[in-house]
Amino acid sequence: MTDLERRIDQGTGREPADIVLKGGQFFDLVTGELVASDIAICGECIVGTCGDYEGKREIDISGRIVVPGFIDTHLHIESSLVTPHEFDRCVLPYGVTTAICDPHEIANVLGTEGIQFFLDSAAETIMDIRVQLSSCVPATHLETSGADLPVERLVPFRHHPKVIGLAEFMNFPGVIHKDPVCLAKLEAFQDGHIDGHAPLLTGKDLNGYLAAGIRTEHECTTAEEALEKIRKGMHILIREGSVSKDLAALMPLFTERLSPFIALCTDDRNPLDIAEQGHLDHMIRTAVAHGRAPLAVYRAASISAAKAFGLRDRGLVAPGWRADLAVVDTLESCRAEMVFSAGRLVDDALFATRKPVAPVGLDSVRARPVHAAHFAVPVTEGEVPVIGVLPGKIITEHRRYRLPAKGNQTAVDLARDIVKVAVIERHGRNGNHANGFVQGFGLKKGAIASTVGHDSHNICVVGVDEEDMTLAANRLGEIGGGFVVAEGGRITGEIALPVAGLMSLDPYESVRDTLRHLRQAAFALGATLEEPFLQLAFLPLPVIPHLKISDKGMVDVDRFALIG
Amino acid sequence: MTDLERRIDQGTGREPADIVLKGGQFFDLVTGELVASDIAICGECIVGTCGDYEGKREIDISGRIVVPGFIDTHLHIESSLVTPHEFDRCVLPYGVTTAICDPHEIANVLGTEGIQFFLDSAAETIMDIRVQLSSCVPATHLETSGADLPVERLVPFRHHPKVIGLAEFMNFPGVIHKDPVCLAKLEAFQDGHIDGHAPLLTGKDLNGYLAAGIRTEHECTTAEEALEKIRKGMHILIREGSVSKDLAALMPLFTERLSPFIALCTDDRNPLDIAEQGHLDHMIRTAVAHGRAPLAVYRAASISAAKAFGLRDRGLVAPGWRADLAVVDTLESCRAEMVFSAGRLVDDALFATRKPVAPVGLDSVRARPVHAAHFAVPVTEGEVPVIGVLPGKIITEHRRYRLPAKGNQTAVDLARDIVKVAVIERHGRNGNHANGFVQGFGLKKGAIASTVGHDSHNICVVGVDEEDMTLAANRLGEIGGGFVVAEGGRITGEIALPVAGLMSLDPYESVRDTLRHLRQAAFALGATLEEPFLQLAFLPLPVIPHLKISDKGMVDVDRFALIG
Repeated sequence: MTDLERRIDQGTGREPADIVLKGGQFFDLVTGELVASDIAICGECIVGTCGDYEGKREIDISGRIVVPGFIDTHLHIESSLVTPHEFDRCVLPYGVTTAICDPHEIANVLGTEGIQFFLDSAAETIMDIRVQLSSCVPATHLETSGADLPVERLVPFRHHPKVIGLAEFMNFPGVIHKDPVCLAKLEAFQDGHIDGHAPLLTGKDLNGYLAAGIRTEHECTTAEEALEKIRKGMHILIREGSVSKDLAALMPLFTERLSPFIALCTDDRNPLDIAEQGHLDHMIRTAVAHGRAPLAVYRAASISAAKAFGLRDRGLVAPGWRADLAVVDTLESCRAEMVFSAGRLVDDALFATRKPVAPVGLDSVRARPVHAAHFAVPVTEGEVPVIGVLPGKIITEHRRYRLPAKGNQTAVDLARDIVKVAVIERHGRNGNHANGFVQGFGLKKGAIASTVGHDSHNICVVGVDEEDMTLAANRLGEIGGGFVVAEGGRITGEIALPVAGLMSLDPYESVRDTLRHLRQAAFALGATLEEPFLQLAFLPLPVIPHLKISDKGMVDVDRFALIG
Repeated sequence: MTDLERRIDQGTGREPADIVLKGGQFFDLVTGELVASDIAICGECIVGTCGDYEGKREIDISGRIVVPGFIDTHLHIESSLVTPHEFDRCVLPYGVTTAICDPHEIANVLGTEGIQFFLDSAAETIMDIRVQLSSCVPATHLETSGADLPVERLVPFRHHPKVIGLAEFMNFPGVIHKDPVCLAKLEAFQDGHIDGHAPLLTGKDLNGYLAAGIRTEHECTTAEEALEKIRKGMHILIREGSVSKDLAALMPLFTERLSPFIALCTDDRNPLDIAEQGHLDHMIRTAVAHGRAPLAVYRAASISAAKAFGLRDRGLVAPGWRADLAVVDTLESCRAEMVFSAGRLVDDALFATRKPVAPVGLDSVRARPVHAAHFAVPVTEGEVPVIGVLPGKIITEHRRYRLPAKGNQTAVDLARDIVKVAVIERHGRNGNHANGFVQGFGLKKGAIASTVGHDSHNICVVGVDEEDMTLAANRLGEIGGGFVVAEGGRITGEIALPVAGLMSLDPYESVRDTLRHLRQAAFALGATLEEPFLQLAFLPLPVIPHLKISDKGMVDVDRFALIG
């Protein structure tokens, strides 16, 4: 008996279904109605709705509502600081049954070995993890990454069943100015999906970017920006990450009219936020609480997302569709009490069936030890550029200040909340070290350091005290990468992320607990940002306006050039 | 300079665009707004909207509105009675830039040779003709077709760039009852699109049909039927053909809410109707005149249709999208004053660039000559089954009447509008001949005959007089197939359709004029149906309820069996 025959037999009701959810309602994302009905499931597939069914296994869901599983349309699993296996175990129970990820972080450290690790993991996870091929490694010529992914290294992955085209094309100046390396990648993927990433791009430059065949965008931070982009045919992926939080600003997009053209994503979300707030369910809950139409919000979370990425088999509770389902208490609170992934009830036993995948990149932190003198900045005449950090935003401001001197060195200015920032190349390629200044962390003492620094993931240190900056940076080499807090000559908090210097080998629960501890250690330094390590991680990102720092020096993103 | 480079240069405005439509508005199907803007086109692609552009060629469209080209999501080009080349020339000027056709008619006569003819033609037409692979040839075991298309003859076409999956799966009893021939085809196309066709199927039988992975439906004839199917995840293709006219009944589907899940199609539309009313533009005009929201209607005609069939590149007026455009006078009247297909202005010169494709099936009418005695029906006791024709519907009623006798023969009953119908096998396979009775044509004398008789396209004759029936049937063999009217021992009207007995070799204009003449000749017999030849053509179709006739005999469609 084939699966197809079984589905027909069970759908017609001639045979009892494998599983029947009885006594509940489902949210019909076509008509917008709540429909009282059994849901019959055969294998991976829904086979019956709008009727009564008998099942070999019957589950009472009285008083509950079945909705299609949620689709995260753009994320970097690395930002959860756990492996894909642990991400699966952590996030699937919130109803997120599909995650379209860009392994951009691990690809910047390990190249194709990192992409292959994600594909191998995706073959084992219960959640359907889809992989987009990281399009911009290195992201720019303004930084030193651990690997290079020219088009010829991406093309062999193009037809892998888990691959959906090219990931966020963040080098938008490269597109507009016809950089040959960019164009070669765009040409190779014209027949598939090409994901966008073009913050603040507007007018004819945006048109030129879109003329290259780019179709989705998760970088809108205002409703006005989103309106121009959605009108120009982009599917807008509304993002609520741990740092980049665009949900409030993009609330006006959740209308029935626009609902076929929007979707949800997290981009970068850490396990603390997941534990404390949830995942896409948090976005849904928040949007509905703001009075947005549940139909528009739930469509964005499933069917509209599926259509945007060519996932033909999912996004509705209907016969013949993939049985990716969340059973929630109410549409408003969106608490998933039960989740099905391809017809399988998600529980510990199911996760236990997965084969482990060997970690990669365990020796990826190859920086030479630094000394306090490396962090010295000679006195200069006039004002110096200072990165202005905005809480909860990855966009920074380009500020200029006249800073105090201490001997022949430029000093920090705690009264104005300006401290030092440094980036140290850690891939063993050139030993670069760049210093600069940053405003907005709130630090009064000590230092924090990380090997998670988008997109090249060199060591990034922010600190008041050069000795603590030295201690923190060197500690990262000893633990294979991670986050470190140093204060008064000792390490007061740390988490090891030995998988490419980006992900832990531990269960997500212990990562979450350690992060709580680490955050307290950073607050003890005076840190005022809610997520100091996440904001630290975006200081080196030279594709996001306006002022950043890489291992090569301070970067004026608006001019797309190093500051001499 | 590559196309990609040219698109970027022209989109950004660095270089003048190939074509610029100036001074008009476009209908933004995302926001629902009319936006005043130039439209810049480079090659096949729109590259600029929402701004002013310079062009190498500038076309003033002041006072006009640009809408995305229309997509006919299900049709049989054969029903237009002209070749694909003539269909292209006839229908593209109405703004129909994509036609997703099922060469089901020619495939029933010629098999893969017919499909290949359509693919060869599609490579030349200006309009983008996509081909779905005819899934049910022969449609049933209750008739004799000219060819057999088991799965192994379809699979070689699966990855042809013009092919979109499997066409209307009309053998729904075969699906539900797991006929192995049906299941083999469904299995082979599980990864692609499988088009549906299941009139009146409901409840769990419908669920079983959908569980097989079938996703689109053009056979809904009531809003209630459509509501069940759309709720069960089917994309509803609202049909307005020359015989099957569902637009009025399905008007309630044109809402903004349902708009992502509906599309338009014509299924079977003849050149007279096209000339007199238009094509999809007629449907749009009618729906808007009935007060339906233009946004819902135009979405159904383009973007929603494109998404349903995985056509990622079209359906919006936006940069990076295929320049399939209609320039209309108003959204209400939808008169296409100018049409662009992949960036090319549609005119006679453009059509003249197409290479001709050699016709096929010029010797397809192989029936032996008949005699009047073949049409004799012996007297039987009690009532006989009579096909009840419903004007403008392909569904028929199963009626039973006690008919008058004339000698030892059952006679026609003109008072009750009951005349004879016969089907004669014409593929040269078995020489079958079946007789029966039909009510509702209005004929008072003579006969009409045709080689267009769905789906096997045997000769079908309806008539009062056996001599005229004989004359008409035999004339079809002489002209290689077509439509014939006979009255009083002579042919009073005819059109030759020598391409497989289905399509003319003449320009559509002369086909249209000849059809007008032919219709008059049928009316002269007393015919009261608006389209006697089209309704005749559906009498042999045993997949449509309730009573039909094939070369094997009268068919009770509800029992899916011949009447003994």
